[in-house]
Amino acid sequence: MKNEKQGKFITLEGIEGVGKTSNLRFIKELLESSGHDCVVTREPGGTNLGEALRGLLLSHSDENMSADAELLMMFAARAEHLSKVILPAIDNGQTVLCDRFTEATYAYQGGGRRLDVDKISELEDWVQGDLRPNLTIILDAPVEVGRARASSRSEPDRIEKEQDDFFQRVRKAYIELAEHYPDRICLVDASKELAEVQHQIHERLGEYDILTTID
Amino acid sequence: MKNEKQGKFITLEGIEGVGKTSNLRFIKELLESSGHDCVVTREPGGTNLGEALRGLLLSHSDENMSADAELLMMFAARAEHLSKVILPAIDNGQTVLCDRFTEATYAYQGGGRRLDVDKISELEDWVQGDLRPNLTIILDAPVEVGRARASSRSEPDRIEKEQDDFFQRVRKAYIELAEHYPDRICLVDASKELAEVQHQIHERLGEYDILTTID
Repeated sequence: MKNEKQGKFITLEGIEGVGKTSNLRFIKELLESSGHDCVVTREPGGTNLGEALRGLLLSHSDENMSADAELLMMFAARAEHLSKVILPAIDNGQTVLCDRFTEATYAYQGGGRRLDVDKISELEDWVQGDLRPNLTIILDAPVEVGRARASSRSEPDRIEKEQDDFFQRVRKAYIELAEHYPDRICLVDASKELAEVQHQIHERLGEYDILTTID
Repeated sequence: MKNEKQGKFITLEGIEGVGKTSNLRFIKELLESSGHDCVVTREPGGTNLGEALRGLLLSHSDENMSADAELLMMFAARAEHLSKVILPAIDNGQTVLCDRFTEATYAYQGGGRRLDVDKISELEDWVQGDLRPNLTIILDAPVEVGRARASSRSEPDRIEKEQDDFFQRVRKAYIELAEHYPDRICLVDASKELAEVQHQIHERLGEYDILTTID
C-alpha cells in the first residue's frame, strides 16, 4: 500500500575533497529538523548485490573491462538500489539522501572517461523511467582545492597531473549538468569556508522547496 | 587491423534435454570440415568477468534480485563476451559457435519469467548495435521429451509441474522467435533420433549458406 505523500529524493555530488561527507551529515540534520524521516544511502553499493558488483568493478578494473560492461554493471547496481532501498523509502513517505547517483555516471564515465553520453542517457531512461532526483546538490571547487584538502603535497607528479586532467573533465561535466537542468540540479561553491558552504546549502534547500515542514 | 573476410557468428539454442552439447560438437566438426576456423564459446560466461557475473546471478538468486538488475547483469556479461571473445574472432575471420546467446534471454527471461520483451530488445540494441548471429539454430522438442531425456522419472511432482509450465513458455518463445526472424533463426525438430536431427542441422547450415567452403 502506498503512502499518499511521496518522499523526496535528494542526491549529493562532487569530486574528491570537496567535503561531501560532512555536508551529507549537515543536510541530514537540516532535513530532520524540518520533520523529514531520512534514509541516507550511497552509490555504488547500498544493497548486498550492489556491494558485490562494486567489488567486481574494482577487482576487474585492471583487466581493462569493456566500457559497455562497466556501464551496465553500474546501472545493474542502481536498478537493485532503486528497487530495494530508494523506491520503497520514497513510497513510504521518507526522504532519501543519496551520496552520488546517476549524475556521477555522467560526470565520471561521460566526462572523465569520455564514454558516450547518449548511451548513458539510454540506460538512465531504461532503469529509472521518469524518475529523477528532486534535487541534486553539486559541491563544486577547483580541482587543486580538492587535491590540497585530500593531500598535503603541493607539487603534483606525472600521475597526479594525469589525474588532474581527468578531474578537470569530471568537474566540467558536473557544471554542465547544473547548467542543463537548473530545475533540479544546483551548484554550491565548496571552495569557501565550511560555514559559508553550509549557508549556501541551506539556501538551496529553501529555494528548491525541499525544507517545507512536514507534519 | 581487420581481416577483410569477416567470420560467421552461429548460435545454438534450446531447452534442457534437447541435445545441445552433442549437436554443438557435430556443428563444430561440420564447420571445420568445410574449412572454418572455429571458436566455441558459451553464455552466460565466456570471460573472467562473465563467469564472475554468472556466479553473482546464481548466488543472489534466492534474495529475489530485481528483474532489471538481473537483465542488466546478463547483458553486462554479454558486452564483455562480445568485446573480448566474439568480435575479435569474427574480425579475425574465425567462425564463432556460441552455446546460447540473446535469443535465450528472450526465451527464458521474456517467455519463461515474463519480463518485458521491449526492455530486452532495448538492451539488445544498446549492447549489440546491428550485430545479430548469422544463424541461430533452435533445437526444438516437446518439454516432456527433454524431461524424459534428462530424468528417468515419468510422473512429475508439483515442482516439476511448475517447471513444465515455465519450460512450455520458454519453448513457445523460441518457436515465435523462429517465426519472426526466419532469415536468421531456424528450428530443428530435436524429438527425432540423433542421426535425423544431425541430418536436419546439416541441411539448415546449407540452406543458410554457412557451409560455403573457405579457402
